[in-house]
Amino acid sequence: MRTICFYSDYGYQDDFAGTCRAIIKRLAPEVEVIDVTHGIAPQNVLGGAFVLRNTMHYMPDGAVHLAVVDPGVGGSRRAVALRSAGDRLFVGPDNGLLVPAVEADGGITEGRELTAQELWLAPTSATFHGRDIFAAVAARLAAGLPLERTGVEIDVGTLTRVGVPEPVVVRGSLRAAAVLVDQFGNVALNLDGRQLAQAELGEQIEVVCGGERFLATVAISFQAVRSSDIVVLVDSYDQVAVCVNKGSAVEVLTLKVGDMVTLRRRPPS
Amino acid sequence: MRTICFYSDYGYQDDFAGTCRAIIKRLAPEVEVIDVTHGIAPQNVLGGAFVLRNTMHYMPDGAVHLAVVDPGVGGSRRAVALRSAGDRLFVGPDNGLLVPAVEADGGITEGRELTAQELWLAPTSATFHGRDIFAAVAARLAAGLPLERTGVEIDVGTLTRVGVPEPVVVRGSLRAAAVLVDQFGNVALNLDGRQLAQAELGEQIEVVCGGERFLATVAISFQAVRSSDIVVLVDSYDQVAVCVNKGSAVEVLTLKVGDMVTLRRRPPS
Amino acid sequence: MRTICFYSDYGYQDDFAGTCRAIIKRLAPEVEVIDVTHGIAPQNVLGGAFVLRNTMHYMPDGAVHLAVVDPGVGGSRRAVALRSAGDRLFVGPDNGLLVPAVEADGGITEGRELTAQELWLAPTSATFHGRDIFAAVAARLAAGLPLERTGVEIDVGTLTRVGVPEPVVVRGSLRAAAVLVDQFGNVALNLDGRQLAQAELGEQIEVVCGGERFLATVAISFQAVRSSDIVVLVDSYDQVAVCVNKGSAVEVLTLKVGDMVTLRRRPPS
Repeated sequence: MRTICFYSDYGYQDDFAGTCRAIIKRLAPEVEVIDVTHGIAPQNVLGGAFVLRNTMHYMPDGAVHLAVVDPGVGGSRRAVALRSAGDRLFVGPDNGLLVPAVEADGGITEGRELTAQELWLAPTSATFHGRDIFAAVAARLAAGLPLERTGVEIDVGTLTRVGVPEPVVVRGSLRAAAVLVDQFGNVALNLDGRQLAQAELGEQIEVVCGGERFLATVAISFQAVRSSDIVVLVDSYDQVAVCVNKGSAVEVLTLKVGDMVTLRRRPPS
Repeated sequence: MRTICFYSDYGYQDDFAGTCRAIIKRLAPEVEVIDVTHGIAPQNVLGGAFVLRNTMHYMPDGAVHLAVVDPGVGGSRRAVALRSAGDRLFVGPDNGLLVPAVEADGGITEGRELTAQELWLAPTSATFHGRDIFAAVAARLAAGLPLERTGVEIDVGTLTRVGVPEPVVVRGSLRAAAVLVDQFGNVALNLDGRQLAQAELGEQIEVVCGGERFLATVAISFQAVRSSDIVVLVDSYDQVAVCVNKGSAVEVLTLKVGDMVTLRRRPPS
Repeated sequence: MRTICFYSDYGYQDDFAGTCRAIIKRLAPEVEVIDVTHGIAPQNVLGGAFVLRNTMHYMPDGAVHLAVVDPGVGGSRRAVALRSAGDRLFVGPDNGLLVPAVEADGGITEGRELTAQELWLAPTSATFHGRDIFAAVAARLAAGLPLERTGVEIDVGTLTRVGVPEPVVVRGSLRAAAVLVDQFGNVALNLDGRQLAQAELGEQIEVVCGGERFLATVAISFQAVRSSDIVVLVDSYDQVAVCVNKGSAVEVLTLKVGDMVTLRRRPPS
């Protein structure tokens, strides 16, 4: 029996996540579900991919990661189930959402397109595959169904990948994309702690975005700077994040997901 | 042992839903709870009634449906528990919230007013019957208490019903009420797929509301129209919904729950 | 085995609460968790302290109360675990959040600073102690770890307490702080039903705040006044609350947490 770890952009206003949970309960009454979050920004596949990748190793071993951020539902995108080298399973749309996590767990060892329609709910809606396909298949996998029973094998080279620019790291300067904003307005970049260290920026830096320059401090926590000051830190998922102590970086720097941000050594004044 | 499926307008900011869950845990430690949603619009009995009715058949068989949208708490409205022909139980206020779901499950076979005060929490507050009466009674029912122990029998003809206009379906035109808005801004009408088919509108239609006319396409999913175009589809709960691909119908058409919407064949241009 | 009752200001947009739940599942697979609320206003320690105190006695006996509202994370504030005379356990930051609840459960019988680092996740982040310290320690306590194993004993006299003014109660007038606002805009004061009764205000009163006077009615529920009228009632947690029937007191009276509010007998007109 595997635990299901459930991620989506369904939000909390509607019944969508709760109804998926009910389907799991009907099909696999003994399986436990952890609602990791249903607060991914609507249709933000990139953000969802980072949340899934970041949190994966905190989830129980052997979990089924059910992830639904699916702007292409009802179209031609494939529904897939993947197995990682670490024996985690991932169920969701083939739109890039799953791949960064699977790769961070040792890579993909088996991929299936969900073509075994006898595993789905009938009738199957055109707009709610989370309930009718993904939750139904995840429930059966968690209860022990072998992965190969979910559908035809796919060439993992054909999986869709999210397009996010690789960071540019040179001594004294870094350039990376904003990929995730949390509820406090902290902005995580596609950049990890090792890369930040490599650039040898020092403690006093500039953050450049949208044509504007901001003074900031590199530190290990908010406590190192005064209220309203900008701090650049390695967050709890080993991502470099731009933050404002007791404030919102996304507002102060007027950033949004996808924007490019430069961190650089502060020139002598 | 029955599963409790819990619906409310308590939202997620406060402890209300969590405290009700704690009461269930105290009174019936083995009972499982599915939080279907606590995001029903505050005090929107009509919206809650549709969410309950739509999702009911996806919930486990024999579930106790605990539903609390209760603007009349502390007043003279009755607290009730109902059994459907399909052997589901429904616990909540007698304000119309429960009836559409019970009727969709074969009709009401037994109705009780919750008068057995020994089942309630003591002291019983005047403002939080969700905790003190509804959750407490639902917990005991889920653990096996017979329905007749919850209180005096009621004449089901006296139950309050929500007032929602029946749709007017004629060939080439349909008129129905907006009953539910989801977090994406999709607007569901009190109209099902069979009624839409009967009207033979064709693919290219007009949506008329608030004195304005909008061009729209009838299709099976969002994918059939371009971004920002209006699509009318049968949603995953067999309701006809007005949607905007990658946009919000509630904003584009400036609709609100209760508004009347006309769908009609597009005149030859 | 103890149940964990989990309170935080993590909100629902991010994975924070879900990831903590996953840690509990990994470390103590049999332990049950009740998410009481993750909607405490961000970094509002005072509000969190009242939510925890109010709801505590509705939680299962012997629960581990895991509470995280932690603006000082990464700084010098201590992490603590406390036992109440009622044999509840409380895990969280030493910033005042826990003390009102523990005192309401008979007082603190044992306090530990969380210094046993072998119980924490490694590596331990500087910014997410909820996951790396508090959830990890709470999981082990719920599974049976003795409290003394979590760290060194502390002098409970050194615990941080939230600063909230005591209410001033005289015959005919009351003055107390606004401490909690719920999603409906009801404003709870640091004042209980007994204190309200003592002041003998009568039914027709004035509410004075921010230099403005409002007419209000003391009643047992919303149903006693007309829509948009102000009602002062003893809420379901025995707190005196200022409310507007079918409206928002926080908007009508332009109140915020921490404001002082006077309730007084209405002068003869």
